Amino acid sequence: TPRARRAVREADLVIGYRGYLDLLTDLAADGRLRPYDLGQEHQRASEAIRTAREGYRVALVSSGDIGIYGMAGLVYEILDESEPGSEHGQLRVEMIPGITAASSANALLGAPLMLDFAAISLSDLLVPWEGIRRRLTAAAEGDLVVVLYNPASARRRQPFEEALSILRARRSPETPVGLVREAYRADQSVTVTTLGDLAVGQVDMRTVVVIGSARTEVLNGKMVTRRGYLEARA
Amino acid sequence: TPRARRAVREADLVIGYRGYLDLLTDLAADGRLRPYDLGQEHQRASEAIRTAREGYRVALVSSGDIGIYGMAGLVYEILDESEPGSEHGQLRVEMIPGITAASSANALLGAPLMLDFAAISLSDLLVPWEGIRRRLTAAAEGDLVVVLYNPASARRRQPFEEALSILRARRSPETPVGLVREAYRADQSVTVTTLGDLAVGQVDMRTVVVIGSARTEVLNGKMVTRRGYLEARA
Repeated sequence: TPRARRAVREADLVIGYRGYLDLLTDLAADGRLRPYDLGQEHQRASEAIRTAREGYRVALVSSGDIGIYGMAGLVYEILDESEPGSEHGQLRVEMIPGITAASSANALLGAPLMLDFAAISLSDLLVPWEGIRRRLTAAAEGDLVVVLYNPASARRRQPFEEALSILRARRSPETPVGLVREAYRADQSVTVTTLGDLAVGQVDMRTVVVIGSARTEVLNGKMVTRRGYLEARA
Repeated sequence: TPRARRAVREADLVIGYRGYLDLLTDLAADGRLRPYDLGQEHQRASEAIRTAREGYRVALVSSGDIGIYGMAGLVYEILDESEPGSEHGQLRVEMIPGITAASSANALLGAPLMLDFAAISLSDLLVPWEGIRRRLTAAAEGDLVVVLYNPASARRRQPFEEALSILRARRSPETPVGLVREAYRADQSVTVTTLGDLAVGQVDMRTVVVIGSARTEVLNGKMVTRRGYLEARA
C-alpha cells in the first residue's frame, strides 16, 4: 500500500526476510537493507527494537498483513518484556495494515468471504495443537467459512489431515474448497475443488485453503458465499 | 492500494456510494463518477454489469475490502442469475482486494489478531439472526478472537446486546475489547476497554469491535494476543 511504501522509503534501516526485501529494491538502496533468513523472527524483532532505540527509523517488513500471524505481536511482547509499563520506552511504533492472505485468496477465488468466517493457522510450532483443534471444531460446528493459514509443510502433514477430518465430519463432501498459492506473484495458482475431493498433497506451507459454509456455491467457476441480497429482493 | 487506484484511473465509469466517490476526485473526473446513495446495493451492482455489457470499463468501488461483506458476491450472484453457466456472459470481472476493517482495526489497536479469529457481521437485514447467533456462540465457545462488523445502528441495538451476553457468558469480564471507528479517517477513534465495562451505547454502525480471547492482554496500552514466541524461546 502507499502508506507501507512511504514507510520503507523513509526508513534508515529495513529489516525482514531476505525473500521479501528482494522485492523492495526500488524503494530502498542495498545499504539500508538488513535481510534475515526464515525462522529468525525473534532476532529480527529484537534487532528492529535495538536499532530504533539507537535513534534510527526502522521498517520491519513482512508479507501479507504484519498484524495477522505476522511479527507485530512479537514486537509488542518484547517491548513489554524489556520495559514493562513504560509506554514502549519512548519508542514510537506504527503498525501499517496490509492485505492479509485471506483477502487476497478471497479476491482470486470469487467472494467466499461475503459472510462470517474464521481464520485459523495450522502451524503448531508455537501454539498448542489442542487449542487449534478446539478452534477448528468450533468454527466447523458454527458453519463459519474457514480460512486455513500454514496448512502443511513437507514434514508437517498431520495437522492438516486432522483438520480435514474435523471438517468432513461436519460438512457435505460437496462443500466448495478453494486453494490459493503465491497470490499475485508470478507463480500464482488458484484451484477450486470440493471437501470430498481435496487431497492432503495439494497443499503446502504457502497455500491458503478456504473451506465454504452451507451457503457457499460455485457460480461460473467462482466460489461465492451468498449473503442474501437476491433472496431479500425476491 | 496501487492496484485499486490504477483500476479507478483506467475506468470509463466509477460506480459507488457518494461518500466514497468524494474521496476519489484526484483519480477520476466528475463526468466519470456515478454516485449512489446508501442502501442501493442492488442498483449499483446491476448498473455496473449493464454498463460493462455495453462495452465500458467499469470500476465498482466500496470501502474496506469489497469481497468481505462488500458488493463482490452480489455481482457474481446477479451475473449467475442473468446468464447461468455462461462464464459471466463474456464479461471479465477482476476483484481487487483491499484492507478489510479487521486489518485496520487490528493495526490501530496493537495486534489482537496474532492468533485465530472469527469475523462476524451483526447486520441481520439480509441474514437470519438465528445463523448469526449460531456462529457467534461457536466462536465464543472456541475461544477465537471475535471481530464484529456492523455491530449496531441507532435503531438496531438488540443484536449487539445479545452478542454481548453470549460473549460475557463464556469469557472473563477482564477480557480486553477494542473499538475502532473511522479507521485512518480524520475523525478516527480508538478505544481499549474490557468486556465487563463495554456499554452498548459505545458502538454504532461504523464501529469495529474486537473481543479478545483468553490469550489477549493489554501491553503498554496495546491490545495484543500472544502467539507464543516468547514462551517458545524460554
